[in-house]
Amino acid sequence: MSEPHVTALPGATVSRLPGYLRALHEAEESGVEVISSVELATRAGVHPALLRRDLSQLGSYGTRGVGYDVDTLIREIGRVVGDRLTWPVVIVGVGHLGQALAHHKVLRDRGFGLVGLVDSSPDVIGSRITGVEVRPPDELAEAVTEGHAVIGVITTPPGEAQGVADALVAAGIRRILNFAAQPLEVPASVTVRAVDLTGEMQVLVYHEIHER
Amino acid sequence: MSEPHVTALPGATVSRLPGYLRALHEAEESGVEVISSVELATRAGVHPALLRRDLSQLGSYGTRGVGYDVDTLIREIGRVVGDRLTWPVVIVGVGHLGQALAHHKVLRDRGFGLVGLVDSSPDVIGSRITGVEVRPPDELAEAVTEGHAVIGVITTPPGEAQGVADALVAAGIRRILNFAAQPLEVPASVTVRAVDLTGEMQVLVYHEIHER
Repeated sequence: MSEPHVTALPGATVSRLPGYLRALHEAEESGVEVISSVELATRAGVHPALLRRDLSQLGSYGTRGVGYDVDTLIREIGRVVGDRLTWPVVIVGVGHLGQALAHHKVLRDRGFGLVGLVDSSPDVIGSRITGVEVRPPDELAEAVTEGHAVIGVITTPPGEAQGVADALVAAGIRRILNFAAQPLEVPASVTVRAVDLTGEMQVLVYHEIHER
Repeated sequence: MSEPHVTALPGATVSRLPGYLRALHEAEESGVEVISSVELATRAGVHPALLRRDLSQLGSYGTRGVGYDVDTLIREIGRVVGDRLTWPVVIVGVGHLGQALAHHKVLRDRGFGLVGLVDSSPDVIGSRITGVEVRPPDELAEAVTEGHAVIGVITTPPGEAQGVADALVAAGIRRILNFAAQPLEVPASVTVRAVDLTGEMQVLVYHEIHER
């Protein structure tokens, strides 16, 4: 697996790798050592041909008629998506959703460690969530720097999101997960992934209206 | 706008409509009555050509050199994605994330009304969140039926998600929003949208590793 090859992975493939990794971890935990592409694809909820194509782009072809070595494949995918390392996270917006993410067990188990919490409300500033103190907005840059944060999560109301994104980028954050229903403008070197809860619900409603 | 035309909308277009609707609501609230495709596209964070193509599929072409009438377009998109109506929601899994969604202001404002909460833990069964009582799993079907729920949200640990999905489908739910990191098997008539928080974080990590 050569580095230039890996950096050229298509975005759609990258977004499926975490699912493969999760399915592999589950297989490993239930004692599976070698797994067929059909079984792995079923566990990950994708078509086997798609799985084989995705994995071949990582340089992983498995053994014909046998399958993939589970440990090897976990290591190979992990090298690409950075599993089993710790990625420090700062959450800005400590309402219900921000608190829920701070407590999220699966995130913690996968190495996303909370190092900073920031909120503008005097009601929560100074309180502690999972041991991390909530700091005011003018300490955002310190929270990022002191915690060596790599990922910024925005869980503020929509109207505050762009200002928070600007402050995160100014503090050195280049990877943002945005839960605010507000598209963000960021420099080209910054990656934003958006989770639009209302949008997801409205897509479900669309199906409900048109598939009665 | 003819119905057969609308039912044939591509999934990618449907998933962008909520963003357009949000941008239109914002424009409306700031007093804008007519909006150009470029301005609307900028507010929604998409390319103007893509916006024009998406809206033309709804039969909305705007007025050349002038733009789109904001109220008309809100009504037209709303008719497709069901905005401004109430869609009753049942949440299964009342941990931190389930509670955060129960309290989510933007969801409530957009007409997604919480009618049922279900959890298996004796610690929360019987408690009330935003006025809704948490019921045990054997009352899931009653929670769905009595609340006329249309959407089921799964915020359980991954290992419980498939069982919950089966119970929701048996109770008549055909639209599911799944936050559990576990692909679901459902009948073809059921729509599942998945929000994979760990996966989103791992995609950010991928960029962090490969774009230093």
